[in-house]
Amino acid sequence: MIAAEDINGKILFQDGDHQFIWLGADPEAVSGVVQTNQYLIIEKGRGMLLDPGGVHLFARVVAVVSRYISLDKIEAIFFSHQDPDVSSGIALWLGVTSAKIYVSSLWLRFLPHFGIVDQSRVIGIEEHGNTYKLAGSSTIQFIPAHFLHSTGNYSAFDEKSRILFSGDVGAAVFPPGKEQLFIEDFDQALPYVEPFHKRYMASNRAALQWIKRVRPLNPIMLAAQHGGVYKGKGVTEFLDWFERLSCGIDIIETIYK
Amino acid sequence: MIAAEDINGKILFQDGDHQFIWLGADPEAVSGVVQTNQYLIIEKGRGMLLDPGGVHLFARVVAVVSRYISLDKIEAIFFSHQDPDVSSGIALWLGVTSAKIYVSSLWLRFLPHFGIVDQSRVIGIEEHGNTYKLAGSSTIQFIPAHFLHSTGNYSAFDEKSRILFSGDVGAAVFPPGKEQLFIEDFDQALPYVEPFHKRYMASNRAALQWIKRVRPLNPIMLAAQHGGVYKGKGVTEFLDWFERLSCGIDIIETIYK
Repeated sequence: MIAAEDINGKILFQDGDHQFIWLGADPEAVSGVVQTNQYLIIEKGRGMLLDPGGVHLFARVVAVVSRYISLDKIEAIFFSHQDPDVSSGIALWLGVTSAKIYVSSLWLRFLPHFGIVDQSRVIGIEEHGNTYKLAGSSTIQFIPAHFLHSTGNYSAFDEKSRILFSGDVGAAVFPPGKEQLFIEDFDQALPYVEPFHKRYMASNRAALQWIKRVRPLNPIMLAAQHGGVYKGKGVTEFLDWFERLSCGIDIIETIYK
Repeated sequence: MIAAEDINGKILFQDGDHQFIWLGADPEAVSGVVQTNQYLIIEKGRGMLLDPGGVHLFARVVAVVSRYISLDKIEAIFFSHQDPDVSSGIALWLGVTSAKIYVSSLWLRFLPHFGIVDQSRVIGIEEHGNTYKLAGSSTIQFIPAHFLHSTGNYSAFDEKSRILFSGDVGAAVFPPGKEQLFIEDFDQALPYVEPFHKRYMASNRAALQWIKRVRPLNPIMLAAQHGGVYKGKGVTEFLDWFERLSCGIDIIETIYK
């Protein structure tokens, strides 16, 4: 269970004027709807949102964000990929902030189907990744995670906190009442992590490309879009497991049956 | 160019009380927004929509559909996958029809993020595919196309017309002014087909699984969600080419660079 005092968010890292914040759990979670995590990075009073979520959650997430920062101070919104739980709120977020959106260049021509008009506010991330300077100073690296699961997909590494927002990578699907904010013992979380990764992640070859870029960053936490935040030995235990996982196309005959 | 008389749709197949209809081109196409095709199958006055599209196109597609059939006679809507250009109009379509939605069971828990409430109207297609009986009689086969490009993805084969709605498979991205409804000479279309397939389709292994199921159907047309409708020798020329294509994870080192 998520502790009652954390339901409206928790600061995962704070040092001076830099914060990395988890934006809380949905108290009205509906059975059959995948639960998502949203995050906010603040540097010197300027904010960046990570996968702020779909139409469904918009009102709750706006309310939580505004406890930490004024909406007009959000200068950037990162979308790891194009799925509805990540990005369907795009038109609403463009409406309440003056932020620019950063998303894979593969999805630029698709997002306007959500009903957006102002394409000048949507910036394509290049295939090999980019960096972004929050408040003009604090570096966020966009790390390619293509085919994990989305064809055009990124993680985001906050250099100052050394927290990696890993998007769908590391996602856990907890049964109701079993939600947990932190994953420190990977074996205990494995039953909630394995089925999603075997079916949604496209191949071990894609996992190896991502891990090759992530290990040298030596992240202190992996903050996933679904499920929990890996920390302590949970981080390396997850990476060691994912490095050896056969998934998706590797086992496609078992999926088609 | 699309002929002026076809801009509001064209009947691709008609036999007695069965029709397979292409729902026309967007006359106000905006540069930088991927163009999509929508299709309608009618059997004995009952209708099924195939990838009717996002919020962006809703008003135009509703208007065209209603030229062929009353909205209350649409009993089913098929979504090949979860992308915004396919499915972001879901809440609007649920509002104007009493149809049930058919989509990969992998996306059932994600679609409510578009803002839908009534999950009882969204039916998951099983991994190995299903069939649907339109008007209780005419069989539509949902053919698995997983990882092409979406993790949970289907084509739809209308047995009576022998037209295969292929979703993103076969998609062409034509430059403005070069749009064409039919692809009969594959070599001429190849420059608009190849870049998309090499980058978005996850692997040749996935392509082979799909082709193994499609060839025995002997479709007379492949109706794609973007670009054109393959017919004549264009059908077999496309299948022969796709069967040999290295794409996605097969060439991942060139994508990451």
